[in-house]
Amino acid sequence: MSRLVFILNGPNLNLLGKRQPEIYGAETLADVERDCAALGAELGLEVRLLQSNHEGQLVDWVHEAREAACGIVINPAALTHTSVALLDALNTFEGPVVEVHISQVHKREAFRHHSYVSLRADAVIAGAGTQGYQLGLRRIAALVGA
Amino acid sequence: MSRLVFILNGPNLNLLGKRQPEIYGAETLADVERDCAALGAELGLEVRLLQSNHEGQLVDWVHEAREAACGIVINPAALTHTSVALLDALNTFEGPVVEVHISQVHKREAFRHHSYVSLRADAVIAGAGTQGYQLGLRRIAALVGA
Amino acid sequence: MSRLVFILNGPNLNLLGKRQPEIYGAETLADVERDCAALGAELGLEVRLLQSNHEGQLVDWVHEAREAACGIVINPAALTHTSVALLDALNTFEGPVVEVHISQVHKREAFRHHSYVSLRADAVIAGAGTQGYQLGLRRIAALVGA
Amino acid sequence: MSRLVFILNGPNLNLLGKRQPEIYGAETLADVERDCAALGAELGLEVRLLQSNHEGQLVDWVHEAREAACGIVINPAALTHTSVALLDALNTFEGPVVEVHISQVHKREAFRHHSYVSLRADAVIAGAGTQGYQLGLRRIAALVGA
Amino acid sequence: MSRLVFILNGPNLNLLGKRQPEIYGAETLADVERDCAALGAELGLEVRLLQSNHEGQLVDWVHEAREAACGIVINPAALTHTSVALLDALNTFEGPVVEVHISQVHKREAFRHHSYVSLRADAVIAGAGTQGYQLGLRRIAALVGA
Amino acid sequence: MSRLVFILNGPNLNLLGKRQPEIYGAETLADVERDCAALGAELGLEVRLLQSNHEGQLVDWVHEAREAACGIVINPAALTHTSVALLDALNTFEGPVVEVHISQVHKREAFRHHSYVSLRADAVIAGAGTQGYQLGLRRIAALVGA
Amino acid sequence: MSRLVFILNGPNLNLLGKRQPEIYGAETLADVERDCAALGAELGLEVRLLQSNHEGQLVDWVHEAREAACGIVINPAALTHTSVALLDALNTFEGPVVEVHISQVHKREAFRHHSYVSLRADAVIAGAGTQGYQLGLRRIAALVGA
Amino acid sequence: MSRLVFILNGPNLNLLGKRQPEIYGAETLADVERDCAALGAELGLEVRLLQSNHEGQLVDWVHEAREAACGIVINPAALTHTSVALLDALNTFEGPVVEVHISQVHKREAFRHHSYVSLRADAVIAGAGTQGYQLGLRRIAALVGA
Amino acid sequence: MSRLVFILNGPNLNLLGKRQPEIYGAETLADVERDCAALGAELGLEVRLLQSNHEGQLVDWVHEAREAACGIVINPAALTHTSVALLDALNTFEGPVVEVHISQVHKREAFRHHSYVSLRADAVIAGAGTQGYQLGLRRIAALVGA
Amino acid sequence: MSRLVFILNGPNLNLLGKRQPEIYGAETLADVERDCAALGAELGLEVRLLQSNHEGQLVDWVHEAREAACGIVINPAALTHTSVALLDALNTFEGPVVEVHISQVHKREAFRHHSYVSLRADAVIAGAGTQGYQLGLRRIAALVGA
Amino acid sequence: MSRLVFILNGPNLNLLGKRQPEIYGAETLADVERDCAALGAELGLEVRLLQSNHEGQLVDWVHEAREAACGIVINPAALTHTSVALLDALNTFEGPVVEVHISQVHKREAFRHHSYVSLRADAVIAGAGTQGYQLGLRRIAALVGA
Amino acid sequence: MSRLVFILNGPNLNLLGKRQPEIYGAETLADVERDCAALGAELGLEVRLLQSNHEGQLVDWVHEAREAACGIVINPAALTHTSVALLDALNTFEGPVVEVHISQVHKREAFRHHSYVSLRADAVIAGAGTQGYQLGLRRIAALVGA
Repeated sequence: MSRLVFILNGPNLNLLGKRQPEIYGAETLADVERDCAALGAELGLEVRLLQSNHEGQLVDWVHEAREAACGIVINPAALTHTSVALLDALNTFEGPVVEVHISQVHKREAFRHHSYVSLRADAVIAGAGTQGYQLGLRRIAALVGA
Repeated sequence: MSRLVFILNGPNLNLLGKRQPEIYGAETLADVERDCAALGAELGLEVRLLQSNHEGQLVDWVHEAREAACGIVINPAALTHTSVALLDALNTFEGPVVEVHISQVHKREAFRHHSYVSLRADAVIAGAGTQGYQLGLRRIAALVGA
Repeated sequence: MSRLVFILNGPNLNLLGKRQPEIYGAETLADVERDCAALGAELGLEVRLLQSNHEGQLVDWVHEAREAACGIVINPAALTHTSVALLDALNTFEGPVVEVHISQVHKREAFRHHSYVSLRADAVIAGAGTQGYQLGLRRIAALVGA
Repeated sequence: MSRLVFILNGPNLNLLGKRQPEIYGAETLADVERDCAALGAELGLEVRLLQSNHEGQLVDWVHEAREAACGIVINPAALTHTSVALLDALNTFEGPVVEVHISQVHKREAFRHHSYVSLRADAVIAGAGTQGYQLGLRRIAALVGA
Repeated sequence: MSRLVFILNGPNLNLLGKRQPEIYGAETLADVERDCAALGAELGLEVRLLQSNHEGQLVDWVHEAREAACGIVINPAALTHTSVALLDALNTFEGPVVEVHISQVHKREAFRHHSYVSLRADAVIAGAGTQGYQLGLRRIAALVGA
Repeated sequence: MSRLVFILNGPNLNLLGKRQPEIYGAETLADVERDCAALGAELGLEVRLLQSNHEGQLVDWVHEAREAACGIVINPAALTHTSVALLDALNTFEGPVVEVHISQVHKREAFRHHSYVSLRADAVIAGAGTQGYQLGLRRIAALVGA
Repeated sequence: MSRLVFILNGPNLNLLGKRQPEIYGAETLADVERDCAALGAELGLEVRLLQSNHEGQLVDWVHEAREAACGIVINPAALTHTSVALLDALNTFEGPVVEVHISQVHKREAFRHHSYVSLRADAVIAGAGTQGYQLGLRRIAALVGA
Repeated sequence: MSRLVFILNGPNLNLLGKRQPEIYGAETLADVERDCAALGAELGLEVRLLQSNHEGQLVDWVHEAREAACGIVINPAALTHTSVALLDALNTFEGPVVEVHISQVHKREAFRHHSYVSLRADAVIAGAGTQGYQLGLRRIAALVGA
Repeated sequence: MSRLVFILNGPNLNLLGKRQPEIYGAETLADVERDCAALGAELGLEVRLLQSNHEGQLVDWVHEAREAACGIVINPAALTHTSVALLDALNTFEGPVVEVHISQVHKREAFRHHSYVSLRADAVIAGAGTQGYQLGLRRIAALVGA
Repeated sequence: MSRLVFILNGPNLNLLGKRQPEIYGAETLADVERDCAALGAELGLEVRLLQSNHEGQLVDWVHEAREAACGIVINPAALTHTSVALLDALNTFEGPVVEVHISQVHKREAFRHHSYVSLRADAVIAGAGTQGYQLGLRRIAALVGA
Repeated sequence: MSRLVFILNGPNLNLLGKRQPEIYGAETLADVERDCAALGAELGLEVRLLQSNHEGQLVDWVHEAREAACGIVINPAALTHTSVALLDALNTFEGPVVEVHISQVHKREAFRHHSYVSLRADAVIAGAGTQGYQLGLRRIAALVGA
Repeated sequence: MSRLVFILNGPNLNLLGKRQPEIYGAETLADVERDCAALGAELGLEVRLLQSNHEGQLVDWVHEAREAACGIVINPAALTHTSVALLDALNTFEGPVVEVHISQVHKREAFRHHSYVSLRADAVIAGAGTQGYQLGLRRIAALVGA
């Protein structure tokens, strides 16, 4: 069985660490990838971090994960609130899915309180900053017996 | 006048027949294409089946249909509920449009009950499985005098 | 097993072809019956077309169908939006049910967008004019193995 | 051209004058018929007053009016708020329609504030007691040139 | 004073015991009548059980009860949620009214949570199966001093 | 007791007969006054027609009516939907109040379906054109025993 | 198996019979207990009546019932509408639960129309006064085979 | 400091001037570009007009604008109402943003009344036809001191 | 044909430049008038700037504009959200109407997001500060062929 | 610094003590003025009581208060629920504002539960009868250090 | 008759003066008690100030007040918005009830705008800081004739 | 500075591991405490796990934490959705707060989707089973620099 975890990231997260640090902190996606890789090694998991501003690309990666990955950590960013396509894609994935939000979305605008992805996710972690990715990875590890 | 009908398919339908058969059945898009081509031949119509996980690609194909096609059968999948862009594109198409859903969407989650595409479609067929594409093609044929 | 399909019609459909042709077309219920009988013959099905302006009468016919029919094509007309009684009656019927609307109801007044019958129907066809009855019959045929 | 006006009455109005006089007054439907006939004579109109507790019967009478009547005064009573079938029937009638309510419905329960019939009626008169029927008849007279 | 209690039943209850036993149980209306008659005898009340799929018929029976009955036990079935006519009829009845639902409607679809009849009923009993009719009869007995 | 009826008119009605004749007809307020005066003479009532574009002025006139008038016919026009002040003023008036709308407001924009004035009016007449003022005057006459 | 039924009562019911007799009647909780004990004896059941103004106490008693009782009759009073904690507690109880309201809550303020407890209760009885407790006990008896 | 203004255009605007001229007018995007370039020259600004049917592409261009542009004029078209991703992208841009709609969106379907982009835009101009782009450019000029 | 444009201003705008400069800027209405007069001269238009805290006065001015003006630029201020009377007045005006808001209302309280005036305005400009008046004037000029 | 407090009163309050005493009590505005003047003397404050049925006049007085008064006690009456203009005017006033309602508005019709003025008021006092004005004056005194 | 007034305080008010002084000020409950006792002495009333974080305890104290107190001043704090139990308890109390909020709740989160206690309170005072308790006491005094 | 973390648990969590294991798993609170203590030791934190079915008790413990604890991990259970008191208490706490739900609440009933506690919590973790407590503890550690 695969030991690979996909860490998928939605629109604008390529700017992580470069925009609005008061909301999103100073770490970049590269930092996230490095920290998750290190933690994954400890937990017996490999990680593959991907980011796109295109909904269709994220859907494609979820399809790819059906064969390649044992779990998905996903920060859908803006698509959280608008993408049924991503929800439908995740519904075709059989392993565990953890939804991560860097900021505590429930303290922000009302439209950020609803998540289509949460209708599928096994766990949701919000407001833990970039540490949220690591907490998500730990949950995947627990579920896949890593 | 063109005798070509576009059969457009939205996100995740590339997995048709490979995921959740209890909802979507066992037929693949290739099966749909084959069956529609056969029926089209009988009705005097050609068909061109396309699928994309990208909203923008589907919009492009609708634009293309303005020149190339006499009708559109479209299963917008997840975009049904979220894409004003697809609605606006279809509003620029002058031939008949039939919206098809494989599952009976009105028995599923509430957010699947609303369709932007229905604001334009001449007819809507839901819950007839992949046979819905053929029923849609028959309606196009009746409207274009095939 | 019965090869009979009930084609039930709700209030005001006795005027079909005689009122508002811009919405409902020029065909009468007699035309619908004749066309469906012909198609039924081809598909190995008999049809029995009934119409009433009384909700109670339609409920009675659905009860009758429990014994007599292998499938129901129903155009509930105005009762679509208001009759829980009809929904409950259809819930007691075990064969396939196809809901048909002559006009594309989703382009009309908001109160026509909700259908109690859709909570039970296996398939819904709207906006295909009186051809919708035939498309519905084809779906019944596919489901009962006609 | 016909000089006949149908005065249609919905459920429970057979009890008019016999129940809840604090809401509906002491006059009976027979009184209404007599007063309207007298006023009709003065205005050059005949009247035919009908009452039923069955929605289907009222729909039938509206269909009949298509041939027989030059105008309809209708007190749909409870069906005001629930009957799309009656609305659809009235939509097939080409002469003037005046909707009458004996009580001032806007001062009663919220569900009595919405009227399907008002979507078709040319005029609406509420709260004028049984005099409302006569005011309605005067409006019909003005519109049909009586 | 009359010792007669009307036990009125709305649409589809003629199928009681014959459809969906997991929701409605195995007893038929005839069983209900027999059990209520026995209990009535014990409580000094007569019962008359009636059923119709027609709203208008139920309204007529309520009007009849104004003269003939000291109380009404009513299971309005589907009309619970849609019939203002039935509410208005019951508003003209002066004795006690008990509304009974065999299933526990508050655990079912949202549209079954609202009852027009409850705006008039003195008591409401839901989810007690066919025993609910007997509990309702006991309440009538207490109120009419049986 | 006073035999005077105030006929109050809200904003923009000074343009009656001069704007949007397809909605409001060709009669002017002067025509309305003349017709109402004539009918008033017949019914034993005097009329005083007033119009203002200022909510405060209309409130003042209602206060004046407390002493001077036996009834009020009011077409609040746009203030129908927005003026609690007018409602509160009318609540201090003890005679009958009839609310009149020239057009059938329930067929127009949704915000025209709600009336603050209807919470006080004894009767409401909509869609009877300028004849509505006369029908309103007849109702006042009936109520004050004219 | 236990033959004990808990009769739980929420906030302010300690004042039963002492406050607002026009809503709640003149019987006290002690009367209720005495009547239920008598009926229980007849039905082969013991009863234990408890009341608290503290949500937490009621939750504790439901936990206790998990071991001690075969059924629960509960009048949650104000907590009906606000306590998810009580719902969650009842969800852990495996025997039958009957929800009782002394007044007919559906005729009172809108916020009293929603019940969290109804999401769990097997039956709901409202408006039968203090007799409701006895009717509830009869239902428990029927369900536990008393 | 950059004197470049991005003029971004969302889905279907590539058809501007070629579809629905009654809504969008006869000018094409090329005309818009030419007119804005001329006006920009006058105001001391350069313009770069871009169009895509892909949300992700528009997000990318906004990111690019962070380095390259002093202001953004954006007509998000259909994405106005659905794209949180575009809002989030614009939130990372520090210069002035003017949102332009060719048609007066507040007179069209209700779903076109809400704009995610308006939560960020410094100014919004709707209904000024293609002149709106020029008005937007003038506002940018005023804000960047051109 | 008239070359006069009315620039109408609603409640509290007499304080422009004197209150809340962080929202409304430092320019006064006199500044606005001067700048618009200058621009008008350039565009071949005269302007007449008016302000009132009275809805009725603004309605009167719109009526006056029917004869006197070729276009209206209006900043309805608080009346934007509450005045149907102003909407109805503007509906009687046949020339172009441009609605201007100094602040970007869609970023403020929710009740400021709805505009009655927008149901009539040909164009809407919000958030462009007092420059908005000039942009509005330019739009009028384009529409009246100035 | 000014020691003057404006006591502003909205529509219909000129009738205070003369209408609906069961809601508003028997005191007149003159009584209120006398009592407040006396209390003001005790607290070291002058008072000026004003009333108008015109929204525009009240806005003018608030503007005047910007120069003349140290605080405002306002009973906006009907305008409470409808006047954004009054809210905007009060937003330009820098001293303390206390909103007073004679009746306990939260027990009355739902539309009286919302107050635009409360979005600005420093304190709100409802249901204390005409004593509410004095309590409001005491609060002003505390805030301006009287 | 009792001259004792209960001053009841809900959850977290034990921290008054110790938390969030920018919202609640610097005074403690002990200060409130001292100030109210002094004012009570002046008005001929005794006061008893109580605080609890337990809804049930507050209900108990209201029951106690039925015997012991002539009036209640209550700051229900968080329970304002959630406790039907407290409302029901207060409904059993016959003397005057004044609801006090230290902060101006209508300027805070939307869920703080609704109060169950206001459905019973004779007067409501919000935003007057801890002075609100004294204003409430004055209102009690006026009502009990102190 | 304190190294103590409070782990607070709301109603019914005393039954953890004993009820509905398909939702909540097989671990008990004692297991949670043991695992968190072990992890705390590793992270340099002490833990104190508390549970109550009483909202007031939980409020008290939060107050206690103000002095005693550097952070709070809280599973408010049913109170999540109903307790403003708990929110207000947490608002007085200055250290980090992590909200934990064992089940993935967004996949359950709609009323479980709203959390008052989330309006204060720095992070929210749902659906990670009892591991969620440990993930929460890790987040506290990161924030307090453990």
